[in-house]
Amino acid sequence: MPRYKLTIEYDGGLFHGWQRQAGIPTVQASVESAIEKFCGQFKTVYCSGRTDTGVHAFGQVAHVDLPKAYATHAVRGAINHFLENVPIVIRNVEEVDEDFHARFSSKARVYCYKIVNRPSPLAIDKERAWHVFRKLDVRKMHEAAQILVGHHDFSSFRGKDCQSSSPMKTLEILDVICAENDEIHIHAKSRSFLHHQVRNMVGTLEWVGAGKWDPAKVKEVLQAKDRKAAGPTAPAHGLYFIRVEY
Amino acid sequence: MPRYKLTIEYDGGLFHGWQRQAGIPTVQASVESAIEKFCGQFKTVYCSGRTDTGVHAFGQVAHVDLPKAYATHAVRGAINHFLENVPIVIRNVEEVDEDFHARFSSKARVYCYKIVNRPSPLAIDKERAWHVFRKLDVRKMHEAAQILVGHHDFSSFRGKDCQSSSPMKTLEILDVICAENDEIHIHAKSRSFLHHQVRNMVGTLEWVGAGKWDPAKVKEVLQAKDRKAAGPTAPAHGLYFIRVEY
Repeated sequence: MPRYKLTIEYDGGLFHGWQRQAGIPTVQASVESAIEKFCGQFKTVYCSGRTDTGVHAFGQVAHVDLPKAYATHAVRGAINHFLENVPIVIRNVEEVDEDFHARFSSKARVYCYKIVNRPSPLAIDKERAWHVFRKLDVRKMHEAAQILVGHHDFSSFRGKDCQSSSPMKTLEILDVICAENDEIHIHAKSRSFLHHQVRNMVGTLEWVGAGKWDPAKVKEVLQAKDRKAAGPTAPAHGLYFIRVEY
Repeated sequence: MPRYKLTIEYDGGLFHGWQRQAGIPTVQASVESAIEKFCGQFKTVYCSGRTDTGVHAFGQVAHVDLPKAYATHAVRGAINHFLENVPIVIRNVEEVDEDFHARFSSKARVYCYKIVNRPSPLAIDKERAWHVFRKLDVRKMHEAAQILVGHHDFSSFRGKDCQSSSPMKTLEILDVICAENDEIHIHAKSRSFLHHQVRNMVGTLEWVGAGKWDPAKVKEVLQAKDRKAAGPTAPAHGLYFIRVEY
């Protein structure tokens, strides 16, 4: 059965995350349902990283084995046709070897966390960014972020439901930058992340930005290897799964 | 009566433009209604530039005379409270002199037009950007845009309902740049614009990007001083009113 790699965009606000759950709208269930309508058979779709309720994606990657070979543009067009009423789009389809696996073949994952930092509420990016009222010091946030870059035990930033076999991860990039319209973007890149790792790092950086903690405090937080030592979990709706590298 | 300058963000998708019209949801009517609830009197809100149905704003500017003096943060908080159920937010409030006029005091207006250029439909930016299927050459679009920069008769890009006394405008900036996630951003700055001028310029640049016209053709289009010589009007939902300079 030919295997296809799908690059998927979605607005996570309307879904209870990626993973299929009986009777609840999820991204996986929507994509699998569209594929079933298109090719007449139920086929499991495997993603590179399951996203939580509310998390968005510009470039989630998944693979699926279809019952027969189709032109890639036909696969894209057909699945998008059956996804027409939900905010999910197949951006790209490629035929791949049968040993390609969306999750296990990946070399790096890139996320972006979007904060809007201003006193007034949000009209355009409501549910698309974390609205932080108090003024944040972006330079201090970036300074603190650099302490987290590298190969570390990230237990302090590990969600309680994490299924990873080890808390050791190599964080390649954690950049905190100012963007237009009072936005702060936090770019994170790693081969893989622990559950809630990005949101827990962002929650800690927000405390640094607000002056509650000095940047140097983040070294202590990391060394504590204890979730209770770090800041809170930032809201899901500011997080975007940008791309996967293979 | 003290005069206040309001900086306003809105998602234009739910409104029939800025201007008040009986029985139809508009941005002006929503803001005036919120102000009436807050201060107990109807007060006209004057904007720097009326936006059409579907056009968004990060930084529309307006002014209003309130019956008495309030702290600026109280004005912002109160109006936003009464705007809670509509996608309009007062980002900033300043007290200004009585000779300040949102429209007549302005020195420049800045717009950004957002295109997403890819074959697949949009999930995240549906109704927030113009989706162009065919591949556009951004370098050629930028080259063509530079022909339009300067002091010219913009009749070829003037909407038929334009009320401006003259078609002469000085376009300070028209930059076409590549952005992340297959986006193309077109930044436009001018003291003022003719009705539909930005959308008509974008519609013409899209033809250049698609290879229908060479960049040099835009000089002929400009010199024709005839709306029929230019390309079509780009859709409203890709246009963002970014800011006004005073």
